[in-house]
Amino acid sequence: MDAIDDANQLRETPKNEVISFFESAPLLKDAAEIEKSLKEFVDRNTSSSGNLNGKANRVVCIASGGTTVPLEKQCVRYIDNFSSGHRGAASTEYFLKAGYSVVFLYRRGSCQPFCSSLPDDPLLECFSVADDSSIEVAEGILLKLPFTTIFEYLQILQLISVSLRDVGPSAIFFLAAAVSDFYIPWESMALHKIQSASGPLDIRLAQVPKMLSVLRNEWAPMAFHISFKLETDTDILLAKATMALKKYKMHMVIANELSTRKEEVIVVTEQEKVTVRRDCTRAGAEVESPLVELVVDRHSTYIKKFDA
Amino acid sequence: MDAIDDANQLRETPKNEVISFFESAPLLKDAAEIEKSLKEFVDRNTSSSGNLNGKANRVVCIASGGTTVPLEKQCVRYIDNFSSGHRGAASTEYFLKAGYSVVFLYRRGSCQPFCSSLPDDPLLECFSVADDSSIEVAEGILLKLPFTTIFEYLQILQLISVSLRDVGPSAIFFLAAAVSDFYIPWESMALHKIQSASGPLDIRLAQVPKMLSVLRNEWAPMAFHISFKLETDTDILLAKATMALKKYKMHMVIANELSTRKEEVIVVTEQEKVTVRRDCTRAGAEVESPLVELVVDRHSTYIKKFDA
Repeated sequence: MDAIDDANQLRETPKNEVISFFESAPLLKDAAEIEKSLKEFVDRNTSSSGNLNGKANRVVCIASGGTTVPLEKQCVRYIDNFSSGHRGAASTEYFLKAGYSVVFLYRRGSCQPFCSSLPDDPLLECFSVADDSSIEVAEGILLKLPFTTIFEYLQILQLISVSLRDVGPSAIFFLAAAVSDFYIPWESMALHKIQSASGPLDIRLAQVPKMLSVLRNEWAPMAFHISFKLETDTDILLAKATMALKKYKMHMVIANELSTRKEEVIVVTEQEKVTVRRDCTRAGAEVESPLVELVVDRHSTYIKKFDA
Repeated sequence: MDAIDDANQLRETPKNEVISFFESAPLLKDAAEIEKSLKEFVDRNTSSSGNLNGKANRVVCIASGGTTVPLEKQCVRYIDNFSSGHRGAASTEYFLKAGYSVVFLYRRGSCQPFCSSLPDDPLLECFSVADDSSIEVAEGILLKLPFTTIFEYLQILQLISVSLRDVGPSAIFFLAAAVSDFYIPWESMALHKIQSASGPLDIRLAQVPKMLSVLRNEWAPMAFHISFKLETDTDILLAKATMALKKYKMHMVIANELSTRKEEVIVVTEQEKVTVRRDCTRAGAEVESPLVELVVDRHSTYIKKFDA
């Protein structure tokens, strides 16, 4: 990577790119309802007596599953990012056990907490793809918010970050979702199904503005930020994780390689690189268990700095 | 549409395009197992005493759900074609009731016959995306074969058509799957995840060869062929359906518009255009019920021509 590239990598996300992304995005349905649920959730879990789950005011926003990029406004075709959502669903369980309240921002149809151990029943494949915008609250400490497209995902993430602002350093953003890097701006998108009559199809995809730095610097500047780096090529994985740490000023980047991601991850911070492995001696043990344990520990240290 | 376009539309699918598609496709896993299941299924259901379901030797291959197009060999991103698979799953039930045996070629995770009335339970969303290549046979008259990519879909469709050849005019191909029109040839595909560092992404997608005409003319020349046309633009729907009927020498094209597809479809044949509507007077009535009834009637007429 040469100097020019590096400089390019480290520049801030241009404001006009961000503005133009949101301006051109289709309006979020149920934005008012989502805001209301978030407000109630935060009020309930950050009272002076601590949250309903016992841990004083700690909240984590877990983003999970892949975002889609529609190729047509009346969408028949779309680019999808593969993600079962297993990492986010399992991590949700461990954060709840650790006393956090959780905002679970998930792709419709992806894995849910507390049902990863269901049998592989073919009946389970018959899920509804209907656009249920149902917002579910489980026992007051888990708020589930679904998304499908990159437009929905980023708009809801912004709503969450604003609603968690008062939580300050007690909030974690645990961004395990597979977010599209490229998209077709809404205004340049075909209205109807693209016709296949004539020859090859050339698609120009614009880069999705790097919202991580906007989230980190503007939307939730006090929170503890964790992003993920998934690659299939191990040779570039750690370099890319370290670069993401610097570029977006993340507090932690969790690097994982596609083929071994259920066995181990590498936690990269400014101070350390720690490989976290699942406990092979216990049947059914998941890598998310020691991972969340480590995150909670580093988050505690982070909070103490503000208390001092 | 001008004359040049029309001529282009009516030409046969070039052999070299077909050969190059299959040669460049990744090898189908379990091809031998699929062939064996198909052979047993056909033997069982086309004996001299009729099939297990009572109707003499009638078999329908129902293709259901959308195919994906990987953008990377170690696939993280892919283009998907939206389809819940509801049409195919519901039609499977009505064909079974009508005495047909059914080969159900379906997208993993899409709707299954006999479970569309399940409650909208959030637990059901937690299905496994694992690559179970499980081949299921229900009571001997339903063979379920799963696919994910366009490469798998077309290879399995070819295996089915070969295995149904001896069934002759008693076989129906009911092609309700949403098949990708464009793809990235395997040999020109990126091995690893496409990097997002530098500027917009230009993708050139090749046209998927029009396999409908290959299926119709070469793979299963005696069968009764039904294809589907889905559009979001009603203005072009009937014209495109009629053109598909001629171009691919289909026996029937079922035209449906995205927003009304659960209420009505238009059945287009050389002789007629029939609008089929669901029975609004019965709660839970589906358009697939009168649709399959009409198909069975026209298929009976088709078979009689061969008997005469």
